[in-house]
Amino acid sequence: MDERMKKQLSFILEIDKEKNIFRQTSLSGHGRKENDAEHAWHMAIMAYLLKEYSNEPVDIARVMIMTLIHDIVEIDAGDTYAYDEEGLKSQKEREEAAKERIFSLLPEDQKKEMISLFDEFEAYETPESRFAHAMDNFQPLLLNHSNNGGDWKEHDVDVRSVYARQNKTALGSEKLFAVTNSILKEHIQNGDLKQ
Amino acid sequence: MDERMKKQLSFILEIDKEKNIFRQTSLSGHGRKENDAEHAWHMAIMAYLLKEYSNEPVDIARVMIMTLIHDIVEIDAGDTYAYDEEGLKSQKEREEAAKERIFSLLPEDQKKEMISLFDEFEAYETPESRFAHAMDNFQPLLLNHSNNGGDWKEHDVDVRSVYARQNKTALGSEKLFAVTNSILKEHIQNGDLKQ
Repeated sequence: MDERMKKQLSFILEIDKEKNIFRQTSLSGHGRKENDAEHAWHMAIMAYLLKEYSNEPVDIARVMIMTLIHDIVEIDAGDTYAYDEEGLKSQKEREEAAKERIFSLLPEDQKKEMISLFDEFEAYETPESRFAHAMDNFQPLLLNHSNNGGDWKEHDVDVRSVYARQNKTALGSEKLFAVTNSILKEHIQNGDLKQ
Repeated sequence: MDERMKKQLSFILEIDKEKNIFRQTSLSGHGRKENDAEHAWHMAIMAYLLKEYSNEPVDIARVMIMTLIHDIVEIDAGDTYAYDEEGLKSQKEREEAAKERIFSLLPEDQKKEMISLFDEFEAYETPESRFAHAMDNFQPLLLNHSNNGGDWKEHDVDVRSVYARQNKTALGSEKLFAVTNSILKEHIQNGDLKQ
């Protein structure tokens, strides 16, 4: 096996660890917590099936690979819950170090490509990254909605924090934000979100 | 929300169940068994990173969505271990019924598209499906190799059965089959596979 393939396979084996990074979202049916690999799988299929709702046309292969890899840094940096204000402060620094270590396992050209996709996702500036972010918000929202807002109740999340995050879905998809908004209104009415 | 989006979201919620379908492959580091969603996530990233080894040029978006959805039928049909000869006999029938029920949750055009991708994968006739199958063989092989062939030992798998499946990797990628072959020879030498 040549050096290039060795590097590719070493990265591929390393990312297996993402299956052990658990999030704060519960699976439907009031199931166990979801892990990052499952979340990314779900987002990529959603992106493919819901692409007609993107505000702007997107290169769907680019969106899919972006969703699939966007949480790889959490292998080192751990999951930071969207509504954990303390954790969010150090998230960037922890994730930058992880990005460098993990993507460096790849051959140089693929390292560059993956980091560029990861950075594009984080920067929120292209249609693909905005739509991928819409999936990153909408996927856990759907699961949490199916579980009667249990994740919010568990973490005592308030309306303001949820909207601060979920509002950004509109940047990628006005249509999916309209659904998001009607789901949130239902949960506010039910008292699942702290005022 | 209109009827079309309702159907799409109902399918998206249904496939969450794939995260509870466990396979016979253990995660690296002698971990727990892997589930179908994790396996599909891993395959899709592998397809993207290893596409240069496909025997023929492939439309990578098509390969990725194919790998992501190829096990959805197991939500109803369950996982059939690659080397379970009894289970393999009824697999086709169980999976056909599941395919009809699950993809029918989608709007008609997307149901047709998903079933067509699923059938294309099963038929092994296009470059995309042959490369996707190579990932379906190579992904668990890499994990099992990292675990010293533990999955084969647990199931008392023999050399003939493993080659009957793994030989087909060459249809999608001669280069990945060469790696497969050298990995298998190592495990045969170590006595991890029954003769």
